[in-house]
Amino acid sequence: MCLSSKYKAIRDQTVMFCNHLDIEDYAIQVVQFASPPKWHLAHTTWFFETFILKNYVTDYTDFNSDFNFLFNSYYNNAGDRVLQSNRGNMSRPSTNKILEYRRHVDESMIDFLDNLTDKKIIDIVVLGLNHEQQHQELLITDVKYMFGHNPIFPVFNSKYNLVKDANKTSGSFKIDAGLYTVGYQENDFCYDNELGVHKVYLNAFEIENKLVTNGEYLEFMESGGYSDFNLWLDDGWSWVNENVINSPLYWHKIDNEWHYYTLGGLQKVDKNAILIHINFYEANAFAEWKGMRLPTEFEWEIAASKFDWGKRWEWTNSAYLPYPNFVKENGALGEYNGKFMSNKMVLRGASAATSTNHSRPTYRNFFNPSERWQFTGIRLVK
Amino acid sequence: MCLSSKYKAIRDQTVMFCNHLDIEDYAIQVVQFASPPKWHLAHTTWFFETFILKNYVTDYTDFNSDFNFLFNSYYNNAGDRVLQSNRGNMSRPSTNKILEYRRHVDESMIDFLDNLTDKKIIDIVVLGLNHEQQHQELLITDVKYMFGHNPIFPVFNSKYNLVKDANKTSGSFKIDAGLYTVGYQENDFCYDNELGVHKVYLNAFEIENKLVTNGEYLEFMESGGYSDFNLWLDDGWSWVNENVINSPLYWHKIDNEWHYYTLGGLQKVDKNAILIHINFYEANAFAEWKGMRLPTEFEWEIAASKFDWGKRWEWTNSAYLPYPNFVKENGALGEYNGKFMSNKMVLRGASAATSTNHSRPTYRNFFNPSERWQFTGIRLVK
Amino acid sequence: MCLSSKYKAIRDQTVMFCNHLDIEDYAIQVVQFASPPKWHLAHTTWFFETFILKNYVTDYTDFNSDFNFLFNSYYNNAGDRVLQSNRGNMSRPSTNKILEYRRHVDESMIDFLDNLTDKKIIDIVVLGLNHEQQHQELLITDVKYMFGHNPIFPVFNSKYNLVKDANKTSGSFKIDAGLYTVGYQENDFCYDNELGVHKVYLNAFEIENKLVTNGEYLEFMESGGYSDFNLWLDDGWSWVNENVINSPLYWHKIDNEWHYYTLGGLQKVDKNAILIHINFYEANAFAEWKGMRLPTEFEWEIAASKFDWGKRWEWTNSAYLPYPNFVKENGALGEYNGKFMSNKMVLRGASAATSTNHSRPTYRNFFNPSERWQFTGIRLVK
Amino acid sequence: MCLSSKYKAIRDQTVMFCNHLDIEDYAIQVVQFASPPKWHLAHTTWFFETFILKNYVTDYTDFNSDFNFLFNSYYNNAGDRVLQSNRGNMSRPSTNKILEYRRHVDESMIDFLDNLTDKKIIDIVVLGLNHEQQHQELLITDVKYMFGHNPIFPVFNSKYNLVKDANKTSGSFKIDAGLYTVGYQENDFCYDNELGVHKVYLNAFEIENKLVTNGEYLEFMESGGYSDFNLWLDDGWSWVNENVINSPLYWHKIDNEWHYYTLGGLQKVDKNAILIHINFYEANAFAEWKGMRLPTEFEWEIAASKFDWGKRWEWTNSAYLPYPNFVKENGALGEYNGKFMSNKMVLRGASAATSTNHSRPTYRNFFNPSERWQFTGIRLVK
Repeated sequence: MCLSSKYKAIRDQTVMFCNHLDIEDYAIQVVQFASPPKWHLAHTTWFFETFILKNYVTDYTDFNSDFNFLFNSYYNNAGDRVLQSNRGNMSRPSTNKILEYRRHVDESMIDFLDNLTDKKIIDIVVLGLNHEQQHQELLITDVKYMFGHNPIFPVFNSKYNLVKDANKTSGSFKIDAGLYTVGYQENDFCYDNELGVHKVYLNAFEIENKLVTNGEYLEFMESGGYSDFNLWLDDGWSWVNENVINSPLYWHKIDNEWHYYTLGGLQKVDKNAILIHINFYEANAFAEWKGMRLPTEFEWEIAASKFDWGKRWEWTNSAYLPYPNFVKENGALGEYNGKFMSNKMVLRGASAATSTNHSRPTYRNFFNPSERWQFTGIRLVK
Repeated sequence: MCLSSKYKAIRDQTVMFCNHLDIEDYAIQVVQFASPPKWHLAHTTWFFETFILKNYVTDYTDFNSDFNFLFNSYYNNAGDRVLQSNRGNMSRPSTNKILEYRRHVDESMIDFLDNLTDKKIIDIVVLGLNHEQQHQELLITDVKYMFGHNPIFPVFNSKYNLVKDANKTSGSFKIDAGLYTVGYQENDFCYDNELGVHKVYLNAFEIENKLVTNGEYLEFMESGGYSDFNLWLDDGWSWVNENVINSPLYWHKIDNEWHYYTLGGLQKVDKNAILIHINFYEANAFAEWKGMRLPTEFEWEIAASKFDWGKRWEWTNSAYLPYPNFVKENGALGEYNGKFMSNKMVLRGASAATSTNHSRPTYRNFFNPSERWQFTGIRLVK
Repeated sequence: MCLSSKYKAIRDQTVMFCNHLDIEDYAIQVVQFASPPKWHLAHTTWFFETFILKNYVTDYTDFNSDFNFLFNSYYNNAGDRVLQSNRGNMSRPSTNKILEYRRHVDESMIDFLDNLTDKKIIDIVVLGLNHEQQHQELLITDVKYMFGHNPIFPVFNSKYNLVKDANKTSGSFKIDAGLYTVGYQENDFCYDNELGVHKVYLNAFEIENKLVTNGEYLEFMESGGYSDFNLWLDDGWSWVNENVINSPLYWHKIDNEWHYYTLGGLQKVDKNAILIHINFYEANAFAEWKGMRLPTEFEWEIAASKFDWGKRWEWTNSAYLPYPNFVKENGALGEYNGKFMSNKMVLRGASAATSTNHSRPTYRNFFNPSERWQFTGIRLVK
Repeated sequence: MCLSSKYKAIRDQTVMFCNHLDIEDYAIQVVQFASPPKWHLAHTTWFFETFILKNYVTDYTDFNSDFNFLFNSYYNNAGDRVLQSNRGNMSRPSTNKILEYRRHVDESMIDFLDNLTDKKIIDIVVLGLNHEQQHQELLITDVKYMFGHNPIFPVFNSKYNLVKDANKTSGSFKIDAGLYTVGYQENDFCYDNELGVHKVYLNAFEIENKLVTNGEYLEFMESGGYSDFNLWLDDGWSWVNENVINSPLYWHKIDNEWHYYTLGGLQKVDKNAILIHINFYEANAFAEWKGMRLPTEFEWEIAASKFDWGKRWEWTNSAYLPYPNFVKENGALGEYNGKFMSNKMVLRGASAATSTNHSRPTYRNFFNPSERWQFTGIRLVK
């Protein structure tokens, strides 16, 4: 597919997802880490306007000079920005105005892409498209968070059936001790944090083919997992107690039976479905309870070709840190990944909310160990 | 006007005010004390459904059984309720659904009112209409707060020109010392907190005909009013320092000139216009700086017939406390006023946002001494 | 007694109270509103050094120039000061150093007082002695707070038996409606907030001879008083729920029986003893439950000559506000009372911790409605 | 040295350090992470009483049954405990009582050690002695924190001259790429987190012989290091801004010259002395500014034999995570290290506050990336 077709396809997909929303849904921010849909629509557009159109299209006219301030996310190099916690205060610019902004930028972009040959600029466009795909994933998880915290549990799309995912395989397999090479070695797109191909020595390990299911996690819960401090990391134990946690996110015990909110509405928990919405502390406590452990990110990467993945972001026991020879890009794009390298754990794989073509074995996702609004799961190792 | 016509007129006015809003505006809650427009529309409707239709219309069918939980404000007697700070999380039920709810309730109410003769029920309807008028006022001030905190300062209605209010009179007049009677003595509607007519002894005092203007307040600011602790109450001084306050709410110094946000957009401060959006601490500090003081609520009430009022809620130096023989009603309606009788100061008068026919000299409004999003002003006494 | 004897007697009493303390006890600050004993010892001394010795003794040498900064409490006019919440961080200056400071100042003061005739200066000395007596009261309540929050509940003094106070009278008496005069009319010492003698009109009321007992309050507790929102002010109900309150301060249910911490150690609750350590919200809810109410400060003042008081500070339903013609003194001493006139309720009477000669019917004490570490009680009116 | 002599020597050292304290100093807790000296004295004693005397000495009598509750630190398995933030509320038990407790336990311990041959029990005693040495280090840093936050900056010991440490060497040296073995391989004491000897592959790197000095860090400060967001991790940048940081801990600009608090009092910053009291974010930003980086913990361990260390705990860019085959001990002693393996960074080396014989190249210290009250420093790598 040529770049402009690819551009159009990915940009359209973002808007199409939003077709299930009411206008009021676009403006709401329930919690600091989840942005309003309207904001995702604008910010992904701002990326192309700021890093491509304003830099490389000589006669480009800003859609609206306020928008740089309003829709910059965390790029300090790109100017002042609205604090993340205030994104939900802004009913204006209206959704219609933002859709108009998307069309304005898309027209200029498609014109520009038709004649684009400069490899450096193409790379930024491709980064922008990957950035858009990341936001498609966040859009889904943020909408789920908003509806999952509305007391009437709205149905987003009755066909949206993420929770039906079941394991297709079982058992485990062994990987021998030895020196392995990790990091991105292909010639297509990857993020800067995957570069720095390097060797790692791994001890022998045995990894599960399957992901942990709701049924298994219920056993952990029913055996008192949330009240046995021996299973928990110290920070995790504080988190459990301060937030009075006794189940994964979105689970509710109704008439003595566990239910969970899904984008298709409130449903009974399916024991065969793969567990979802647990944080690193819960994943680690579950592993401890099983007498097993989480894989490191390198164990996962080396084993990844042999098992079925792509439904859940899988927690690893690796902190998110730079690879040897990690080099930040100069300027705003250098803020993309490197500056988040503290207090985060690496997740590997991809989730049911991830756009097709946006996953690979070397992809390093990362979140705070307490976060659980992503479609996170557990794979065990011993 | 017959009761059903009055009902219709007041209910329509609430919706008409909202015609200037975009759909996204209805759902936003910027701060805990300000509710989303959608919520005001629903809650005022819930009042009639809960206290009239469900109690007195035998074949009335709930519009939606969730709505009692969603749109109860603070009436503990009327069941569980959504916390005030979560009202802005709810994009659903949609604005359209809520307008449908209003029509559903209005139809039943108008049918019911046509044959209503029971004085006790009529009193509750009248209370509901006064309640609706209070929320009309809050709707205006809450929308102003939302737009006034949006970095692009949207224009709500270019004709909405509250800030042009100027004093029509000046000078002051004296009231003699003596025993006076205060409290509501007419036969029309009043709130329970105005009842308990009683005598008070007042020392002689002299009260201003005019309200303090922006120009006078600017003098206070420019003479260092916000940094001279001798002028401030202890709690006020903490408030100034913790919040780094140096001007009334909505004021911004741009290119060395003071502007303020108005519902007609951002404008230069008009020195002749009456001051607005200051809290009790600021009012008290200003009076201290002038070598004067705020009136008590009884001084205000006794003097009110002689000066021009109704543009600003005027801060008094009286705490909001029960009158002698104050009697709370039983049940949920007893929660209307009495339970707020601590940590609040009384405001007298009415503001430019107050509905016509919703003001009288005995009306007791009350807010925390730190609040300033109402159209509050200052009248001085010596 | 001559002024210097009186000075010596009052100053000695402060130190004598501390004889029951260990050295470590002097330095601890458990909570922001309670100061370390060491700080009380120093701050009362600082008052005489700052307002008398430095101003009127020409050859006076500062004991230590840091002490103004360290031991100023809230007098903004008297220079920078250590934040109240940091007073417990300071192990140094040591207790011995502070006792030395007291002796240094006392020697200079006694010399100075021997020849003092200037009425204006005498007034400041007398204010300083009253100030010291207020701090003696705070010293007792702060030490109780410290020990009452130590898991081993230390005995301060086994003879200290405040809780044995019982009512000596019962029944109630009536006061007729009429115009009364309130405020301090004697020629001895009073605070500025008692001045401004003025008339008030009171409706007829009936007031109890006795204070509420632990036994009566237990009935309130056992009848569900802490869980019936209809009894509570809105702010009180929030306070109960946020702090999970179900009894007065210092009460602990041990083996199904109520105990309370006293300065003589942990004891079983004595049902006949007068209730202590409840805040305004609790006092008000109890009155509501009884179908009675708290007196206003003027009702209390007018009735005070007829009943037995002085064991508890008694909550009134009056906010702490200025009397007509209230005039603040200039400079630092003007900060003594006036600046606290918001968000406080008036207490009348005196408590078992109050120094002899430090009580009178016009005395106006004041605290936030949520505070309960003072020896506060309830007298009812109907 | 026999075990009982060693026991005595180490125990005495803790008390000797405290000889410079006043009694009031023992009781103060300034901040949650720093415990009062009294608490350190008691807690280290509690360790021997709980894990040795109560388990293995049949006729041992508790010194005081409350002490388990009072002086357990974070061992959930060993029963209830006082919250860390409340340790400073407890003036009692008095310091003298705690010194008595130490003597009581020491007598029983020395008797017991004389005949001890059971290897398993000896291991716990040795762990207890290492634990005591860790607390000696914390005692010094906690006392420094207390005095460094007292506005009069008390001198702890005028001979205590930690800040005079200067580098003895300079330059750098190279380590070749290759497979290396890390982890504790000797036969003496180590912690469980150093076990699990394993291979790691390291790329070639070049490491500095010297630690960063105050002078070098001043250059970073003066070139705007604290205001250039490009140098900072995202969490670090938030930390700088929320806490308004512009220098290392304990630094104060007085009369335009930088001073710092030392245990010998306030002094001018010595540019040749080794930098101290910076956190991981500052260390990382400084490295970024230099165009270099921090070593990983394994690079440090492999290179450690070749440079001079032991004055500063050195920040590495490794998160604190388990080694392969890490096994937690059962019961309370299993809580010693493992449960802290999230959100911490590893420090290697030892500091001027570390007891002799309490350092080795495999020792893994760990703190939150925001902490700076330890004697932390920076060594760079490229």
